[in-house]
Amino acid sequence: MRTGVLYGPVQEDIALVEATFDSIKQVDYAPLAKMLEIVLAGGGKLLRPALTLLGGRFGDYNLDLLVPLAASVELLHTASLVHDDVIDNAATRRGRPTANSTLHNATTVMLGDYMFAHAADQVARTGNIRVIRLFSQTLMMMTRGEIGQDLTAYDSRQTVRDYLQRIGGKTASLFATACQGGAVVAQESEEWIEALRVYGHNFGMAFQIVDDILDLTGDEAEMGKPVGSDLMQGTLTLPALILMDRYPGDNPVQKFLTSPSKELLAPAVEAIRGSDIPQESYKMARDFCASAHEALSVLPAGEARQALYDLTDYVLERRS
Amino acid sequence: MRTGVLYGPVQEDIALVEATFDSIKQVDYAPLAKMLEIVLAGGGKLLRPALTLLGGRFGDYNLDLLVPLAASVELLHTASLVHDDVIDNAATRRGRPTANSTLHNATTVMLGDYMFAHAADQVARTGNIRVIRLFSQTLMMMTRGEIGQDLTAYDSRQTVRDYLQRIGGKTASLFATACQGGAVVAQESEEWIEALRVYGHNFGMAFQIVDDILDLTGDEAEMGKPVGSDLMQGTLTLPALILMDRYPGDNPVQKFLTSPSKELLAPAVEAIRGSDIPQESYKMARDFCASAHEALSVLPAGEARQALYDLTDYVLERRS
Repeated sequence: MRTGVLYGPVQEDIALVEATFDSIKQVDYAPLAKMLEIVLAGGGKLLRPALTLLGGRFGDYNLDLLVPLAASVELLHTASLVHDDVIDNAATRRGRPTANSTLHNATTVMLGDYMFAHAADQVARTGNIRVIRLFSQTLMMMTRGEIGQDLTAYDSRQTVRDYLQRIGGKTASLFATACQGGAVVAQESEEWIEALRVYGHNFGMAFQIVDDILDLTGDEAEMGKPVGSDLMQGTLTLPALILMDRYPGDNPVQKFLTSPSKELLAPAVEAIRGSDIPQESYKMARDFCASAHEALSVLPAGEARQALYDLTDYVLERRS
Repeated sequence: MRTGVLYGPVQEDIALVEATFDSIKQVDYAPLAKMLEIVLAGGGKLLRPALTLLGGRFGDYNLDLLVPLAASVELLHTASLVHDDVIDNAATRRGRPTANSTLHNATTVMLGDYMFAHAADQVARTGNIRVIRLFSQTLMMMTRGEIGQDLTAYDSRQTVRDYLQRIGGKTASLFATACQGGAVVAQESEEWIEALRVYGHNFGMAFQIVDDILDLTGDEAEMGKPVGSDLMQGTLTLPALILMDRYPGDNPVQKFLTSPSKELLAPAVEAIRGSDIPQESYKMARDFCASAHEALSVLPAGEARQALYDLTDYVLERRS
């Protein structure tokens, strides 16, 4: 991981976000402390908090407000991952056991709720009502996107457009809020706030598309999860939808959806891996990154803007 | 239900809280609208929102702030019930199907999260940072109480003291916040705010104890759930803990815990029902109500205070 290079002028301040997590882990109820140790284990990239800090770099860079906000963004993300793990019954995430593999479903749901509470507490520390409302509305968009994903699982009638709308809610909304929120608490101009929101949204779209490509083309060991796990759970991502679009009616993804099994998963994954569909999907991610770049043009040149530029390259190049 | 009498001077304003729920139900995504229709079906007592409005009656009774706050309290409660249903795999609640009996676990978790988002959005509408932080801290206490309940399920080593601490977090914290929050947004004195917090806490303790007694002694048809369902899930409530205290080592609750089954549940429930333990438990609930009464003494006499007094009687007398 090259975060030393990646987060430029805010790199060192990320440690303050991690210190916030350390303080959250200090609870006098041992079983809860142990659970928090698992879900806030550290070692994550803290990409979303970095975006918040970078977003605040164009205005009044007040860490007393930006650090709680950045922590809140990551806590919201982590809480939703904890709840995702209930859903998917995933036993590992990035090679580490998930909360749910060592806890009951019941406890995992409550642990996620506990983290939502901390996310709300941190964002409230900004004292900024606009940012607080932004947060609650982001959580609405995220959960709505997740509900859409659950309800359309294994449904072959969905389109690329449905997919883009879904990931817009599920993923891009939090990236947008991370960037926009930083700009709001730093009291930047409305033009810059909007530019950072647009950057974050497009960045998030690219991020999720690459995530979905890697799920099909990535290396199992590097990713720490089985190849094709999205499709196995019935989640149709961009590459699968492109394949279904190209060969309507008869294709290995359609066959898998009709009667899901490990045996039918492999040919579906192979059909995508062996085609130019990953490249076509990357092209779409690149287009979103180009829109993210474009949005930055109204911001003043400098280290912070450069770091935001460079992060889009990192997203396109990452392998896990 | 005698809510017409119960909520005194705020009775009519409860309709504004219901109107808020109606507006939340208006979403342009049909499956989500349908789910919200189930969980916000109406017909509930809206006891917590009534407490918020009554709490605000001793100060600047501004409905533009108090109605969102009251709605937020109920949404937080409803969201936690939705998540509880995931946990318990309960098929019915108060005789109606739960969200989880018609939806997948995954979707139910997300539906609860969506409602948390609305709770956060409503409380943010008060524009009052103190109340917003009160809410996030209440959610922490509630989830911590629930985690404690999950982790001590079927564990016979717990005491009445553990139980009181657990329900203090799980239930009483939200009642306290409902009352206290109303007083805060109505800009009442710190003395009154504290009095209403103490009232709400004690009221909530009594409410949960009665709930737990009724689970063992109530009428199955009236309650809409099987008698002894808490114990069946391994949750040790006050009556069960008193029994274990009285007959340490050998008693039908202990026997059930050692090897939980429907066959061993019935004698445990019967041993409690046939004893004076329900009366002893009611005595404890009455003591909490007395403390709630006492807290009210600093508040000015009038319709609002009278309604708060009378509500404690309702709690002690309710049958379902």
